[in-house]
Amino acid sequence: MPRPYATKGEIIMNQIPVAVLGATGSVGQRFISLLDNHPWFKVVALAASDRSAGQKYSQATRWILDTPMPDYAKDMIIAPASVEAVQAKIVFSALHSDVAKELEPQFAKAGVAVCSNASSFRQAEDVPLLLPEVNANHIHLVKEQRKIRNWSGCIITNPNCTSTGLTVALKALDDAFGVKKVFAVSLQALSGAGYPGVSSLDIMDNIIPNVGNGGEEEKVETEPRKMLGKLNQNKIDFADIKFSAHTNRVAVIDGHTVCASVEFSSPPADIQSVLQILNSYQAPAEARELPSAPKPVIHLREEADRPQPRLDRLTGKGMSTVVGRVRKDSLFDIKFVVLSHNTIRGAAGGSIYNAELLVNEGLL
Amino acid sequence: MPRPYATKGEIIMNQIPVAVLGATGSVGQRFISLLDNHPWFKVVALAASDRSAGQKYSQATRWILDTPMPDYAKDMIIAPASVEAVQAKIVFSALHSDVAKELEPQFAKAGVAVCSNASSFRQAEDVPLLLPEVNANHIHLVKEQRKIRNWSGCIITNPNCTSTGLTVALKALDDAFGVKKVFAVSLQALSGAGYPGVSSLDIMDNIIPNVGNGGEEEKVETEPRKMLGKLNQNKIDFADIKFSAHTNRVAVIDGHTVCASVEFSSPPADIQSVLQILNSYQAPAEARELPSAPKPVIHLREEADRPQPRLDRLTGKGMSTVVGRVRKDSLFDIKFVVLSHNTIRGAAGGSIYNAELLVNEGLL
Amino acid sequence: MPRPYATKGEIIMNQIPVAVLGATGSVGQRFISLLDNHPWFKVVALAASDRSAGQKYSQATRWILDTPMPDYAKDMIIAPASVEAVQAKIVFSALHSDVAKELEPQFAKAGVAVCSNASSFRQAEDVPLLLPEVNANHIHLVKEQRKIRNWSGCIITNPNCTSTGLTVALKALDDAFGVKKVFAVSLQALSGAGYPGVSSLDIMDNIIPNVGNGGEEEKVETEPRKMLGKLNQNKIDFADIKFSAHTNRVAVIDGHTVCASVEFSSPPADIQSVLQILNSYQAPAEARELPSAPKPVIHLREEADRPQPRLDRLTGKGMSTVVGRVRKDSLFDIKFVVLSHNTIRGAAGGSIYNAELLVNEGLL
Amino acid sequence: MPRPYATKGEIIMNQIPVAVLGATGSVGQRFISLLDNHPWFKVVALAASDRSAGQKYSQATRWILDTPMPDYAKDMIIAPASVEAVQAKIVFSALHSDVAKELEPQFAKAGVAVCSNASSFRQAEDVPLLLPEVNANHIHLVKEQRKIRNWSGCIITNPNCTSTGLTVALKALDDAFGVKKVFAVSLQALSGAGYPGVSSLDIMDNIIPNVGNGGEEEKVETEPRKMLGKLNQNKIDFADIKFSAHTNRVAVIDGHTVCASVEFSSPPADIQSVLQILNSYQAPAEARELPSAPKPVIHLREEADRPQPRLDRLTGKGMSTVVGRVRKDSLFDIKFVVLSHNTIRGAAGGSIYNAELLVNEGLL
Repeated sequence: MPRPYATKGEIIMNQIPVAVLGATGSVGQRFISLLDNHPWFKVVALAASDRSAGQKYSQATRWILDTPMPDYAKDMIIAPASVEAVQAKIVFSALHSDVAKELEPQFAKAGVAVCSNASSFRQAEDVPLLLPEVNANHIHLVKEQRKIRNWSGCIITNPNCTSTGLTVALKALDDAFGVKKVFAVSLQALSGAGYPGVSSLDIMDNIIPNVGNGGEEEKVETEPRKMLGKLNQNKIDFADIKFSAHTNRVAVIDGHTVCASVEFSSPPADIQSVLQILNSYQAPAEARELPSAPKPVIHLREEADRPQPRLDRLTGKGMSTVVGRVRKDSLFDIKFVVLSHNTIRGAAGGSIYNAELLVNEGLL
Repeated sequence: MPRPYATKGEIIMNQIPVAVLGATGSVGQRFISLLDNHPWFKVVALAASDRSAGQKYSQATRWILDTPMPDYAKDMIIAPASVEAVQAKIVFSALHSDVAKELEPQFAKAGVAVCSNASSFRQAEDVPLLLPEVNANHIHLVKEQRKIRNWSGCIITNPNCTSTGLTVALKALDDAFGVKKVFAVSLQALSGAGYPGVSSLDIMDNIIPNVGNGGEEEKVETEPRKMLGKLNQNKIDFADIKFSAHTNRVAVIDGHTVCASVEFSSPPADIQSVLQILNSYQAPAEARELPSAPKPVIHLREEADRPQPRLDRLTGKGMSTVVGRVRKDSLFDIKFVVLSHNTIRGAAGGSIYNAELLVNEGLL
Repeated sequence: MPRPYATKGEIIMNQIPVAVLGATGSVGQRFISLLDNHPWFKVVALAASDRSAGQKYSQATRWILDTPMPDYAKDMIIAPASVEAVQAKIVFSALHSDVAKELEPQFAKAGVAVCSNASSFRQAEDVPLLLPEVNANHIHLVKEQRKIRNWSGCIITNPNCTSTGLTVALKALDDAFGVKKVFAVSLQALSGAGYPGVSSLDIMDNIIPNVGNGGEEEKVETEPRKMLGKLNQNKIDFADIKFSAHTNRVAVIDGHTVCASVEFSSPPADIQSVLQILNSYQAPAEARELPSAPKPVIHLREEADRPQPRLDRLTGKGMSTVVGRVRKDSLFDIKFVVLSHNTIRGAAGGSIYNAELLVNEGLL
Repeated sequence: MPRPYATKGEIIMNQIPVAVLGATGSVGQRFISLLDNHPWFKVVALAASDRSAGQKYSQATRWILDTPMPDYAKDMIIAPASVEAVQAKIVFSALHSDVAKELEPQFAKAGVAVCSNASSFRQAEDVPLLLPEVNANHIHLVKEQRKIRNWSGCIITNPNCTSTGLTVALKALDDAFGVKKVFAVSLQALSGAGYPGVSSLDIMDNIIPNVGNGGEEEKVETEPRKMLGKLNQNKIDFADIKFSAHTNRVAVIDGHTVCASVEFSSPPADIQSVLQILNSYQAPAEARELPSAPKPVIHLREEADRPQPRLDRLTGKGMSTVVGRVRKDSLFDIKFVVLSHNTIRGAAGGSIYNAELLVNEGLL
């Protein structure tokens, strides 16, 4: 396939046509916002359910972000979410899992690269589950995927928003000290449940000690093991790490916080060594200079009461992982708090970063 | 000392005169509210800082509870918090720790039973740290205390509000399966910080991943070990359990939630056995029929998303411990969520329950 | 019709069988809660949409009140909301307006007294719009209604929850000084929108300056005029008062607050006269001793910053109207703040109070 | 005095040295944030109370904005707030009124232009109360001020944050239709009370129907009359408009909302004319192209439920006034909702805009 758009190191001469599936929802809105003025990608189609199709985007959408709807999107006519109606090289999928399961393979078969935020294919053996600053090389699994499935396009996925920040922090620690066990408790933001999502009567003066009817905990216990695993002859060997997760919904708009305790196979002599490892962590070279690459990958806070979602979620334009309160743990080795913006790094921004990596690796 | 007030099984003929120290603050207000129409106790004095002393209670106090200020308190003149000014058999202390450290021993020396919510003496070897439904027999440590310190009164304490519900649940489990290790992450209510306490600008759309500047975590890792310990020849042998705690402040008015994972020495065969143990747990006989005894001690919720602080904190008039989401843990044996009302069971209600036990055991 | 249940002053020997239509929603839940142990009424049927019919109430309902679901309701099987399926002397309607419009007349025709919280018939000429502490005598409009419509039952309605507290305060003022003009701005609670109602993402750190898509303002400008009007030969002469209303949704769970400025035809000499009138207001004699009669009707607060919804909404078990900050107005005569519990006095409690009046007046 | 910095139309060659008084508080933080990279002004000193003086800014300050502390400020040593310690041409004052009353005249006497957010001098006859997009020409009152007080510097003030947006909207309407009467009810954000300001226990699930202990209402009833007045031979003739204000605190972080009803002397024929006037309003020529000039001055929203503080407060970088829900009023002529960012347009941003006008008019 000729790639007029990009190869490693080349200057991008023409923008790549992209589309957003599920464009009217909360993650769809983040895609549209983050793709405004993207240096590589040009949004040529917005697709949503049949109920919205045919309407102007600005009419069909209840915009809930506190930044204004980008001008480019306002007058676009919403297309139905079908291969015929959406012409693009890359589609960003903010579809619900059940719809994604049907629709994403149709796009991949038709030659489109699907960068998906849905959970439907995250655990498929031949589908990369990607955080470019963690496991950029897993992108090459798409070659196997194309061979097996006889697709000219592909599906690549980003993890559940709660796993995201935790996995970035664990990657730095695992490289240095070998992670064996992780105990993780989340305090998750409302935007993670979509819109309208959580009723105000359920969360005002309250917490809900369960997310996704329990399914969230299973994801947090599984997805990091795939991302921290090794690409070995066209398959991923999962990392040998045991997780226990509790997930909670709290009255925060954006930003998932996770309290974690970690046991190492080669524990460091002191906390100072841990801080230094977190502070100096860098993305793999191929993921370092992409437009959406987080700067820094990890922002280490040394105050006694940070990170806090309202104050820290926009660190690095919402793409950085913020870690704080690193200290000794009395059962395992260390404990800390990690924060990640759930609809930017943990959803739309993550899918875009994945797409940039795909392009940059010459895999589009 | 003749006890005209109460002995086991006797009818209380005369009410016992009691006082509240630190009466204007948030815990002080709970004391005053819970002591309204108490069958055994009659509030004869309200004491507070010199700034408030001499004023009517209703004038000096910014009442923050959503139940009205009891009539009996409105016109009482606030006394200074001194032994001379406060004449009572029992004082309930809602003092700050630094003030409590000075003042509570003066009352104890003067023959008064101090039932304290402050942390100052919780870890003193001869001071009972009490949850009557857990360790009622520790009350007898006051005999040793009186001997050593040559006091005719005494100091008895209730634990930190975050330890409270957790310790009740652990007691039931420890009796049945032997608790070895506990991971605990709290989501704590705002009223735990007193009034004015947490600024609205710090907690709206936010969480603070630190309580009490870190000191809270140490308390949660230590206090349950004393309460789950054994009274052995006038001292407490701490329970051999290891704790790791993370504490967080969230936007909830009342009710502390704790997510816990627990490892047992004799794990049960299945979750059903755990549920049955929690469901059937009863307070020690001597603590079971007191006026403030929680009914039930543990309320087990079987829904997938309970307990929730707004909906469940007033279970058993705020004295019950509510447990839910009991399930297998992939690192330890089980995990669950526990909720306890922090200013009722975890503070004022707890101190009053302790006082009732003291009276009932003939130790006043 | 013989009335075995109640006449003025008689002791109630048998309870009256009642039903709740729309029993699973937020107002339905309040009905069920408030009817628990009601001295006159016994709930014999709970009805809801076909989706819920046939299930146990406790299974079909996501209970959102912070008081527990009454035991009597838990195992009741939900009936379909039809005249055939629901056998009762009185039905309390928490139906949506469009459903109410169809269904309530069918019940009335079948001889049932419908006490409705829906807006469908509030402005019908022959339907009483009632706040018993304001216009108890309007209840006699049901005689005309029965004659015109040839019904053996009837429909009586309570006003919109935002009008409720305002109208009670205005009644006291109108009797004394003649109300001519009212400017009213509401700050309304979330429970007024039902469940799930307002999305948390719409109201956290936010206000919505519009309720009911504008329709709420029209109701506040119209309904008080009917209630403050006079029953004159089988019709209501509306009060000659002009209203201007702005309505807002704010992040409060329960309790609607209204800021009002009022112009009088016979202004009082001073604010003290206004306070005295508000303080001494009493319900009409026939509405004064009913089980749900508010005690007091108006609770006047003299602090500078009251009423506040969280602290004051449960005044008089949620049936009292709380007024505060009464002061001179620079454009009209006086201004003040009025608070009323929107799902108790403003909805379910109001309908029950209406039913009690109906029974007591011998009109059942 | 030679002005090396700026004259009308000149390019600014050198930046003007400025300082912030009260730099550690919430408005002080906004000043520091908004002055980062300001094209004309260079912050040379940060001053605060003696408690903070001598410390690094980053150490002494609990930063509460969700944008990071600017780098330039972090290592600045906080100066005491005295004329001797602070060398600058302009000082921005975020002092409390009582301190401002003493200190600001000392700076003015010493030749410094004080751009103050404090209320101390707003009503002084010779002190401009300025919103440049409303009454830019009032700036010339400083000539009279300098003459009378024999100052080489001056004091210029910006209004109370609740008056700000309302006055901008009224200016456009007054020019076109003549404003006679205004009812205004505010729903004010928490940041308006400073930090720590409002306790979370006072505002969660609540509103406080009083701001500034009543003083806020007087300001809203007075300040707009000065700003909408005419500069007439060295004094301001207040506008002949009557105001009635109610002020409320709500659970919103930033952004004051005001519901207003307005009576005109020459009412427009229809709402369309009002919309057009609001939409086309422009600042006076001399205030139009300044660095902080709002673009647009008024942003008119036509949706049924806007403006909303969380979604609209950052319109025009927080300097625009957002107006919506313009509709007929049944008592006066029209009613509408107006929103303004209270710590940007209503405080720090307003003072900076004033300073820019002062410079541009050659009055520094």
